[in-house]
Amino acid sequence: MLYQHGTLGTLMAGLLEGTATIDEILEHGDLGIGTLTGSDGEVIILDGKAYHANEHGEFKVLSGKEYTPFATVTPFQVDTHFDVRNITDDEALLDKIQHDALSNNIFIAVKITGKFETMHVRMMPKQEKPYTKLIESAKRQPEYVREQVHGTVVGFYSPQLFHGIAAGGFHLHFVDEDRTFGGHVLDFEMNSGSVELSNIETLEQHFPVNNQAFLDTDIDYSTIDEDIKEAE
Amino acid sequence: MLYQHGTLGTLMAGLLEGTATIDEILEHGDLGIGTLTGSDGEVIILDGKAYHANEHGEFKVLSGKEYTPFATVTPFQVDTHFDVRNITDDEALLDKIQHDALSNNIFIAVKITGKFETMHVRMMPKQEKPYTKLIESAKRQPEYVREQVHGTVVGFYSPQLFHGIAAGGFHLHFVDEDRTFGGHVLDFEMNSGSVELSNIETLEQHFPVNNQAFLDTDIDYSTIDEDIKEAE
Ligand SMILES: [Zn+2]
Ligand SMILES: [Zn+2]
Repeated sequence: MLYQHGTLGTLMAGLLEGTATIDEILEHGDLGIGTLTGSDGEVIILDGKAYHANEHGEFKVLSGKEYTPFATVTPFQVDTHFDVRNITDDEALLDKIQHDALSNNIFIAVKITGKFETMHVRMMPKQEKPYTKLIESAKRQPEYVREQVHGTVVGFYSPQLFHGIAAGGFHLHFVDEDRTFGGHVLDFEMNSGSVELSNIETLEQHFPVNNQAFLDTDIDYSTIDEDIKEAE
Repeated sequence: MLYQHGTLGTLMAGLLEGTATIDEILEHGDLGIGTLTGSDGEVIILDGKAYHANEHGEFKVLSGKEYTPFATVTPFQVDTHFDVRNITDDEALLDKIQHDALSNNIFIAVKITGKFETMHVRMMPKQEKPYTKLIESAKRQPEYVREQVHGTVVGFYSPQLFHGIAAGGFHLHFVDEDRTFGGHVLDFEMNSGSVELSNIETLEQHFPVNNQAFLDTDIDYSTIDEDIKEAE
């Protein structure tokens, strides 16, 4: 089971108010990704703990009381796993994940643990009210590169039909072993480690029915494909 | 909660093999819509009973053992209702439903009971293997009109972001009071009766993970928008 609160489409449209607490998200799983109110940075959920990396390169453990407009989480159960023994770029690795997964037509949860030769991430800059489309703040997102770093990549593969609700394809976040650095994964090169996959049978999509802005806004999804491509 | 087995997109692509029994669908709700293996006709679920209308105008109660590739169901709970006292066309009625619902950005379940001046339906013709895209059989779907008929319209409003997973906007099926006639609603004119709505907080999207054709097919969703517009 994959639990998602909010949708990427609504986030892209600029509905950035947090509508669920991190504690509420953690009730539905122990591995996942998300962001905070204002699309502030990157949330990484690993082993039931939630971490946050912001645009300034700051990293912290979340208390659980913070609000999120968009988060995806799963009670992670390994269905398939393989070892990585030689230097592998992300493209080859993600290809193998898709190959080893049950299907490209379902959601897949991913956990990649080991040593990374390079890890290239970004963190979404926080918007203040009045919020604008996410593409506006995405244009100024800082990027960071770490070399020879130990850590874990977590996230999801979403089938193309669900592009707009989530990001079609892979959406991955990283947290280092020391819990001092993380972000939204742009690309990486892995030295060695292990890859674990979970094949997802059910998506539980939850809508923020208590948020007046979400309920009332006439959302324009006409540019969502290009917006996601440019922002992600 | 709305429970959906399969997606409209996968059905449009011609994956028409039944992958859940009607009994399995009924475990998740008592009001809904669907079709059978081969995209055979229209399933109408009302008060926990499942009915079937085929392309020949035949109507029957389902045993529960039949298989469906695509069905949507909810444990219907009324959040809002209103009476219809004067002749109303479907457009005015559906406008009022959207207005009275909590939001256009969530799923809404609908139950419309009363006397209909006209009821215009179609039934999808059953395909035999090898299945082709649904648009092929949709082109030869027969239409039926009944006048001054008592019965119930059931179905769902889906937010535009979910077009492809379901049909964006309203997707409604009809069953008459005598349980002798029904189908997929094209348009209608209502005399009098009542409308009940349910605002949906969570979509539970279930994938047919035991169906090899679904798992293995490289599905082309590029024409899905036009296909749904033409078929629905
Ligand atoms: Zn991200
Ligand atoms: Zn239908």
